[in-house]
Amino acid sequence: MSASLTLSLDAMGGDNAPDIVVKGLQIARKRHPHVRYLLHGDESALRPAVTHGDGLDAICEIHHAEGVVGNDEKPSQAVRRGRGTSLWRAIQSVKDGTAAGVVSAGNTGAFMAMAKLALRTLPGIDRPAIAALMPTRRGDCVMLDLGANAECDADNLVQFAIMGEVFGRNVLGLREPTIGLLNIGTEDQKGTDTLRRASAVLRESSLPIRFEGFVEGDDIGKGTVDVVVTDGFTGNVALKAIEGTSKLYAGMIRSAFESSLSGRLGYLLVRSSINKVRARTDPRRYNGAMFLGLNGIAVKSHGGTDALGFANAIDVAVDLVTHGFNETIKGEFMKVQKASGLDPEGLEQAANG
Amino acid sequence: MSASLTLSLDAMGGDNAPDIVVKGLQIARKRHPHVRYLLHGDESALRPAVTHGDGLDAICEIHHAEGVVGNDEKPSQAVRRGRGTSLWRAIQSVKDGTAAGVVSAGNTGAFMAMAKLALRTLPGIDRPAIAALMPTRRGDCVMLDLGANAECDADNLVQFAIMGEVFGRNVLGLREPTIGLLNIGTEDQKGTDTLRRASAVLRESSLPIRFEGFVEGDDIGKGTVDVVVTDGFTGNVALKAIEGTSKLYAGMIRSAFESSLSGRLGYLLVRSSINKVRARTDPRRYNGAMFLGLNGIAVKSHGGTDALGFANAIDVAVDLVTHGFNETIKGEFMKVQKASGLDPEGLEQAANG
Repeated sequence: MSASLTLSLDAMGGDNAPDIVVKGLQIARKRHPHVRYLLHGDESALRPAVTHGDGLDAICEIHHAEGVVGNDEKPSQAVRRGRGTSLWRAIQSVKDGTAAGVVSAGNTGAFMAMAKLALRTLPGIDRPAIAALMPTRRGDCVMLDLGANAECDADNLVQFAIMGEVFGRNVLGLREPTIGLLNIGTEDQKGTDTLRRASAVLRESSLPIRFEGFVEGDDIGKGTVDVVVTDGFTGNVALKAIEGTSKLYAGMIRSAFESSLSGRLGYLLVRSSINKVRARTDPRRYNGAMFLGLNGIAVKSHGGTDALGFANAIDVAVDLVTHGFNETIKGEFMKVQKASGLDPEGLEQAANG
Repeated sequence: MSASLTLSLDAMGGDNAPDIVVKGLQIARKRHPHVRYLLHGDESALRPAVTHGDGLDAICEIHHAEGVVGNDEKPSQAVRRGRGTSLWRAIQSVKDGTAAGVVSAGNTGAFMAMAKLALRTLPGIDRPAIAALMPTRRGDCVMLDLGANAECDADNLVQFAIMGEVFGRNVLGLREPTIGLLNIGTEDQKGTDTLRRASAVLRESSLPIRFEGFVEGDDIGKGTVDVVVTDGFTGNVALKAIEGTSKLYAGMIRSAFESSLSGRLGYLLVRSSINKVRARTDPRRYNGAMFLGLNGIAVKSHGGTDALGFANAIDVAVDLVTHGFNETIKGEFMKVQKASGLDPEGLEQAANG
């Protein structure tokens, strides 16, 4: 727990920014009294909010930024003309070392493109991945990639597996996290060539990880493995299909309680238990998707979240920084790539260069 | 409603066959009194079950088959050595015209491989697709492909869209079913080249279908479109992720009610409403995945289903036959392919040949 941990925030990203950011900070301040924040955004909006923000002025430093990246802006466009925006500036604070991590609720594609350009990938990682925690029957699992790379080759998947494993061990505190590759069957011959190649590397190499082979879509909710590895297309569809189903269920259960007098009475009796289920599956609890594999911690909050959700995304960034995730990844990757025979020269050059 | 509709059943397929098949027939007999059944399987097991089966002997004809395709058998292996099996024989009854459709709860991959080999695809269709109904906030939608083709090109996706549209109009009775292509964003530039090409064909051609563009994973549960089109890999993962989430939710709600005395009391009050939710999302209600695009109706029941689920799969086959799904597809495809300029010569040759 560093006494001087500083995070950089894109104060203008998200549907209800900067309001959720400032209110989120009021929650985060109590959870992490030692953390300081650089707020990038419109000073005229941020200054009064922070001044009246219940002690926020003592932990926040406002950095004025004129522009805001639009939600519909294409990543390439945002990168070209977005250098003055709050998002770009927030990332720069990590690049120049004044902040240990950055959080934004803004445009995901632009955030990833800018973060890749500014921070670059860690040695040994060809492409960063988006990872997030998901609820399962036996606690949470981590799934990656959730949309950074629509198409992935076998090397990308192997690298994601290694990053997921380090995350499970380092941040979730699991002794031996189990890893599964998402496929449409568990037999060896199932799926695409890419998946079979990635599986062969993970299975046959001497990587010090517990690879459980292929898993299927329903294994996510079952919690069959601690780390679910997939390409960004499949991961994004699966994540959103799960979100859609959660909402469908929540809506049906709500209607069931509201549909009759006995339903409303019954609800009074089961309210506390139902609230536990609600809390367990609250999307805000799972807010904070991590961009893993970059030279710097970057966490994406859901654009439509509220103050509590934004505070939870800050938690994720604090967790990754205080557990030294990137330092561990760098160290592990050297060992792991040597063991697996995966391009160790390129890795060492990159590490020393 | 033909007075002489005959279906062919693989009586030995599924975890609890032939029990679920015979008990499923007792339910189906009441729902469809005009349907006759050819039961393929072990006569020594089927004869007594049918004889004591409450009038089943009047509507069933037993065709003895020695072998059974194993659940773990590879499709290629099943095709090579499975000619004497109940599954193969059941499909042959459709090929030789003695039955209008076939239902099996057996090995999906073997069923699809045998059905493709025996029945061949309809003119204009390069590859069959697996389709099923899914619950949404505004009724059901149909999704395809759910796993027949792990990799698809743009032409395959366009053909799936057309089949889905005909299914929506012809079987679901929708006047103008809406079609969406499953992607990781709704903007034109999102996703893979294959998806962008398929979208361009569906959007720019003069196909008489309502193509709504790209949809995302959460649009399935929202019911944004009537027909969700995707490749078999993504569709299978999404389907199973949705199933896994439904089970996760159902389990949590159950625990919530069981966790306390007030929960158990509350349950008594909301039971009827909760049962409605349960019935609405009952996997048995959605049992019966359709192999669309073959010269013959083929319906796959879930292997672990019970008698009610199997009876529902029979419903699906009856629906497809009585609505003349394949005849409509053939007619529509001629029109549609002429309109779209998609390889009409090949199609006409196939249709006339």
